[in-house]
Amino acid sequence: MTPMQELTAISQECCRLNEIESLLSWDLETQLPKNAVEGRAAQSEIITKYLHKIRTSPRMSQLLTQCQADIELSEDERALVDIMQWVYDRISKIPEAHSMLESRLTTLGMQAWVEARTTDDFSRFAPILTQLFTLTRERAELIGYTGHIYDALLEGHAQGMTVELVDREFEKLKKVLIPLIKSRMQQQKTSIIGSEFDVTMQKKFGKYLLQTIGYDFDRGGLGTVRHPFMTDLGPQDKRVANRYSASGFHSFFSALHEGGHALYEQGVAENYQQSDLSKHFSLAIHESQSRLYENIVGKSTEFWMGGPYQELQTHFPTQFKPLSLAQFIDHIHEVRPVMIRVDSDELTYDLHIIIRYEIEKMVLTGECEVADIPQIWNQKYAEYLGLVPQNLAEGCLQDVHWSIGAIGYFPTYTLGNINASQIWHTFVQSHPTWRADFAAGNTTILREWLQTNIHQYGSSVHPVALLKRLCNEELNSDYYIQRLTERYL
Amino acid sequence: MTPMQELTAISQECCRLNEIESLLSWDLETQLPKNAVEGRAAQSEIITKYLHKIRTSPRMSQLLTQCQADIELSEDERALVDIMQWVYDRISKIPEAHSMLESRLTTLGMQAWVEARTTDDFSRFAPILTQLFTLTRERAELIGYTGHIYDALLEGHAQGMTVELVDREFEKLKKVLIPLIKSRMQQQKTSIIGSEFDVTMQKKFGKYLLQTIGYDFDRGGLGTVRHPFMTDLGPQDKRVANRYSASGFHSFFSALHEGGHALYEQGVAENYQQSDLSKHFSLAIHESQSRLYENIVGKSTEFWMGGPYQELQTHFPTQFKPLSLAQFIDHIHEVRPVMIRVDSDELTYDLHIIIRYEIEKMVLTGECEVADIPQIWNQKYAEYLGLVPQNLAEGCLQDVHWSIGAIGYFPTYTLGNINASQIWHTFVQSHPTWRADFAAGNTTILREWLQTNIHQYGSSVHPVALLKRLCNEELNSDYYIQRLTERYL
Repeated sequence: MTPMQELTAISQECCRLNEIESLLSWDLETQLPKNAVEGRAAQSEIITKYLHKIRTSPRMSQLLTQCQADIELSEDERALVDIMQWVYDRISKIPEAHSMLESRLTTLGMQAWVEARTTDDFSRFAPILTQLFTLTRERAELIGYTGHIYDALLEGHAQGMTVELVDREFEKLKKVLIPLIKSRMQQQKTSIIGSEFDVTMQKKFGKYLLQTIGYDFDRGGLGTVRHPFMTDLGPQDKRVANRYSASGFHSFFSALHEGGHALYEQGVAENYQQSDLSKHFSLAIHESQSRLYENIVGKSTEFWMGGPYQELQTHFPTQFKPLSLAQFIDHIHEVRPVMIRVDSDELTYDLHIIIRYEIEKMVLTGECEVADIPQIWNQKYAEYLGLVPQNLAEGCLQDVHWSIGAIGYFPTYTLGNINASQIWHTFVQSHPTWRADFAAGNTTILREWLQTNIHQYGSSVHPVALLKRLCNEELNSDYYIQRLTERYL
Repeated sequence: MTPMQELTAISQECCRLNEIESLLSWDLETQLPKNAVEGRAAQSEIITKYLHKIRTSPRMSQLLTQCQADIELSEDERALVDIMQWVYDRISKIPEAHSMLESRLTTLGMQAWVEARTTDDFSRFAPILTQLFTLTRERAELIGYTGHIYDALLEGHAQGMTVELVDREFEKLKKVLIPLIKSRMQQQKTSIIGSEFDVTMQKKFGKYLLQTIGYDFDRGGLGTVRHPFMTDLGPQDKRVANRYSASGFHSFFSALHEGGHALYEQGVAENYQQSDLSKHFSLAIHESQSRLYENIVGKSTEFWMGGPYQELQTHFPTQFKPLSLAQFIDHIHEVRPVMIRVDSDELTYDLHIIIRYEIEKMVLTGECEVADIPQIWNQKYAEYLGLVPQNLAEGCLQDVHWSIGAIGYFPTYTLGNINASQIWHTFVQSHPTWRADFAAGNTTILREWLQTNIHQYGSSVHPVALLKRLCNEELNSDYYIQRLTERYL
């Protein structure tokens, strides 16, 4: 075996282990019996241990060095070596003791978070969160960065993203969003739609939506969970999990959201599916695919006109038969600032993200202490959204992310929105008849275009280069701002 | 760490890997998308590889030697060392090349089996089956045996069982069964029950039955599959999968069958759940638990009288309200020799097993060739059951077992029946009021008694010793014969 062949085989083995880890989680979320959580943790721990061992082995280091020096690699081989090197560098720079401490703290962090939420007492969470921020800071230093310390974290979730870029675009966005929301609120009428939506019917309709956008059920499946997600359980097994509540129809949009993620992974070229080139995606690009289907497509008149609205009326005659398509669209475009990020609408969503991003940076750089978070949080919510949380559960303790040490992750949601509009803008230029096509029920043109220009590449092309090549630009929120302004003004 | 501590840790790691392997299969059977089978195989292969590596490692050998020599081990530690030694011996005696060849042949075997079934042409399967028998013979020789070559195979599925014992008891059984079936057929009236059984309702009723016998859903779950099974996905996660067909109600009895298996595993003592003492059961004992609940309990008047029949009538009023309990019991005791083993009734079932056992022995010892199987099969079916298969799919190609190299496995089904009646006989002696108790809806006395006398021990006690201690006898089909004679004559 050549070093490249051996590295490829190792990559395949790691992918299979990643998939097994995802299956353990999928089953945990969808059907694990109540008392089996501990046993499941022990199983996951073993797989994580094996993966870590392989990823950081001296053999891996040798092979990477040998392959980096091999000038006869193909372009795909080079891409695989690069992504594996990137993973190796990020993991091997962290001493085992550090990883173990982080892992232990996140378990405690989760417990403390739940306790602090329940008792509405931030001081029960603050000490552990302080330690988690300290460890995150140390990890960032170990990994290294050239500009801002936060760059080291961003790079882990969205390769090539930096504070400089993100600050620039988030500031532009913030400046537009705050007044836009205010003016929208003044002119908008509130519509009311029946308040009971049969869950079984929602499941059926969610399945229909997934089929409509081209999700392939022979290479996936749909489960029921408390928090929607998409997961990769194998080269031909990209599953979607959705949540349902009888009091609303948010499940339609989360189906489209997770479906967007799943189309991406189902669209990766066959020959990358066995390797790390099908695993280590930029979340900024990944999230662009989900947001594109959830918001740009899923909240457009044209999409619903092309069949789905009629189907919706058939599934839920009491609720939607009395409503014209235009009234329905008005309803799903309604803007209502709320305290909870995951319940918020398209227009207010990014302010939730920007607030978290700003606070994370402040704590990381020592501009404020963890203990100050609730106060800063409330100030920012008042300033940006005109809301003041009544307690921690609807304030700074609403999200689980920090408790499990996921610091530097939030920005990818808004980066996804920004990227989605850039990509959509390019699509529209090459498909000027999209409105007529969508209205005739043909969204396949979009999926095929995305597959050709984004999906197939997996992570064989650096996300910054991919966007540049496709849109002829780097990160730019102008298209997103323009789209939101058009839709909501 | 002492060698015993290290061995215990390794046992735990192996158990977690076994559970992960079981989850991969559970998901394969319950929800894997159509196109993902290959990917799943690749995932399973990795776990199998890791397991094999740990189980046969030089370190394992060292630790076993050290622990065997340690005179200060506790009884439980000794039991764990013994079972791990047993596993080590069986695996490490087989060269890797042999295992790989067997593994490759079983994949081909499955394909050839399907082809031969579809085309009704045994010659398409015979060459591979011949090779599989050759490899099995070689494996038996590598493992070693003192009496009959088949003993080496039996030992793998049911520790302590030998051809000498099995022949003796199977012969007794056969001699009684053949005339008993004939006389039953002559006196029996045929009853007819409505022919449509709503599958959703069957699922509900199956769940009810599982709850009734004491299956704990907080430590398990119920899935839908094509072939029922029970699987161990963790110390607190023993799941059951059932199949349903609207044209009958066999699912009730497979729920009880798999439930019996699950009660066994849920009943293993907590401190064995982390180790091999919760994994390497004798299938003869395991099957005794499932048969006991399926047939002895599940086909008794007393069980149905204690609540389930009333519940059944509520679930399926059209079909069962017109039927008295006595008529229902007559119906489920109906004997109808059929060609297909899995569709057969309690009384004819064992003849299907005995035929396969006899043929396996003949081929293994060279008494006949693989090519002769169809002819011998048909002769035996005519002789024992008065039936002649019209094609291979309802003849010798009906079961998948041989195609995947599972030779020496079939006898455990009948051994389970025999053991079940021995165990039941002992239970009845210590619970003379069982009829009244069951009729009052109390079957907990049985589960608790089984837990105390069988379940809790896991595989910490050799199955032969366990039976001997409990029933004061070795394998003896007299109780089974007596029970069948009473029920069916």
